[in-house]
Amino acid sequence: MRATLIYGAGDVRVEDVPDPRVQEPTDAVVRVLRTCICGSDLWPYGSRPATEEGDRIGHEFLGVVQDTGADVTGPAPGDIVVAPFAYADNTCAYCVEGLHTSCPRGGYWAQNGVDGGQGEAVRVPFADGTLVRLPVGEDSPLLPSLLTLSDVFCTGHHCAVTAGAGPRTSVTVIGDGAVGLSAVLAARRLGAERIVLMGRHRTRTDLGRDFGATDVVPERGEEGVERVRELTGGEGTRVVLECVGTEAALETAFGVVRDGGTVSRVGVPQYEKGPVGYAMFGRNITLTGGVAPARAYIEELLPDVLDGTIEPGRVFDSTVGLDGVPDGYRAMADRTALKVLVRP
Amino acid sequence: MRATLIYGAGDVRVEDVPDPRVQEPTDAVVRVLRTCICGSDLWPYGSRPATEEGDRIGHEFLGVVQDTGADVTGPAPGDIVVAPFAYADNTCAYCVEGLHTSCPRGGYWAQNGVDGGQGEAVRVPFADGTLVRLPVGEDSPLLPSLLTLSDVFCTGHHCAVTAGAGPRTSVTVIGDGAVGLSAVLAARRLGAERIVLMGRHRTRTDLGRDFGATDVVPERGEEGVERVRELTGGEGTRVVLECVGTEAALETAFGVVRDGGTVSRVGVPQYEKGPVGYAMFGRNITLTGGVAPARAYIEELLPDVLDGTIEPGRVFDSTVGLDGVPDGYRAMADRTALKVLVRP
Repeated sequence: MRATLIYGAGDVRVEDVPDPRVQEPTDAVVRVLRTCICGSDLWPYGSRPATEEGDRIGHEFLGVVQDTGADVTGPAPGDIVVAPFAYADNTCAYCVEGLHTSCPRGGYWAQNGVDGGQGEAVRVPFADGTLVRLPVGEDSPLLPSLLTLSDVFCTGHHCAVTAGAGPRTSVTVIGDGAVGLSAVLAARRLGAERIVLMGRHRTRTDLGRDFGATDVVPERGEEGVERVRELTGGEGTRVVLECVGTEAALETAFGVVRDGGTVSRVGVPQYEKGPVGYAMFGRNITLTGGVAPARAYIEELLPDVLDGTIEPGRVFDSTVGLDGVPDGYRAMADRTALKVLVRP
Repeated sequence: MRATLIYGAGDVRVEDVPDPRVQEPTDAVVRVLRTCICGSDLWPYGSRPATEEGDRIGHEFLGVVQDTGADVTGPAPGDIVVAPFAYADNTCAYCVEGLHTSCPRGGYWAQNGVDGGQGEAVRVPFADGTLVRLPVGEDSPLLPSLLTLSDVFCTGHHCAVTAGAGPRTSVTVIGDGAVGLSAVLAARRLGAERIVLMGRHRTRTDLGRDFGATDVVPERGEEGVERVRELTGGEGTRVVLECVGTEAALETAFGVVRDGGTVSRVGVPQYEKGPVGYAMFGRNITLTGGVAPARAYIEELLPDVLDGTIEPGRVFDSTVGLDGVPDGYRAMADRTALKVLVRP
């Protein structure tokens, strides 16, 4: 089959790789209907050292079950399923409490001999635990929105939930990438009253307004902090959703959060140390969030996608075939595309 | 009157200073019955640059109201009162939600012309909001335990509360100083089932066991982390109370916390940046806590102190008069005293 590999910064290729097949009795093989490129894929795309051998890449997909191992009792061949961006057994103590990303038997796609999502098919470990059946057909117009349950919308939702967004809360969202916009939509869905979106790409912030942002602040850094504070009686918001992952974004987050408030972050940290000294301590600010256990949220969010209450798939503004994946990376890195959908 | 000043590292003196008097109609003047030395006083005692003029110091006290301004309606001359380590109006939005340390009109003792606690008397701003009446006499044997409501026990309680300690939770407490031991007692009071105390001073950890610690781990660093993990099925505890304030202690905290768990810290951070990168993010660890709004907790904790259910005053293992304060600092810095009570 064909799949995507990354060989170095700026060097993504679609090549022939071995066809996936059931290896463990708990495996399934899924033919990919839709996959996509994630903002987090842009970190290695921007900085990965060049190597002779490439690494598989991609971690968001939905598709059709083709084959299942002897122990798989849930998904059956022909079922349409979505996979969260981490596979997990869904039975251990961590999974039971909704922290599938810490499942001791779980792991991430495109690592340790597991297929990446940006290809024609994927071998899925712990298929019973990992996959969630979707009551739609192969040609459903809902596929893009359903695909966001694999990662980006669940990640925005995780950010909003862990930060305590809910009815009557005021929220600042930092970042107008697909995760930031998903966080806006998630906060709105949870009832947040005021949602300030910090972002400066007009087409993106316009979608953010459609998703529920009540205010847009294009300024960055100190100026952006000042602007959010002006909008919020000088105090900042109780809830801040940090959807970028840089230290500068985390500093902005601490700048716009109200004393006693919470910063949740879901952008993969591009720093080892962060500004968590007395300035944060003296104001009783909480830092939470982390890699989203998407699997924990899919069933909860699915009905709202199926009935059209939310359309998280609107973050996709470009569609390519598998051969177009390298172009898709380039477009996202150049910010000419917000998020690229892939139809293998 | 006599009061304590700090002139530099290791240089604490008791000197004559102007008698406090009511300056604002919302002030009271309190004659100090008991004050004490805080672990946080040891940071300037260890590193303050030497200067010609000293700074007042001390922020924990209880005493007798001597005089009140015209607008004070609560505390009256003759009342025995305790003051939290931050004064506050107790009427603003922050105070109403229990975050008195962020009161815009509030502040800390021994700063900006406000008296320090380690002296014969203190002018108390916003006396109605700041002071809490104690239904005891000047010679009550409960005074040491009541004094801990000024800071150390409320700080341990804040740590336990913000971390989510409660019935059936397992907790690790880092640090066997007076705050760490208070955090043990607070966690036990809130119903924590298992409390692992990390500390290596036997007399202190023995008191920790009396306060409710179920396990004591004297090892530090990586070895200590390993030991706590061994005790907790390899996973660490869901709740970690960081009661030291160094970056090493914060690293230990992240080492012993279970994935998805919470680290709360109340030791004043002696670092500007901390290890909050991917290692914390990938495990969905929350960092919370901060400077304790002691005022928010005094009424809640007072009954248990008055009826002897808890005896947080057991952290005091030495008593001096005001002239003995310099010796008290030395003893705490040398760790020959856990916490020094002062009777001016």
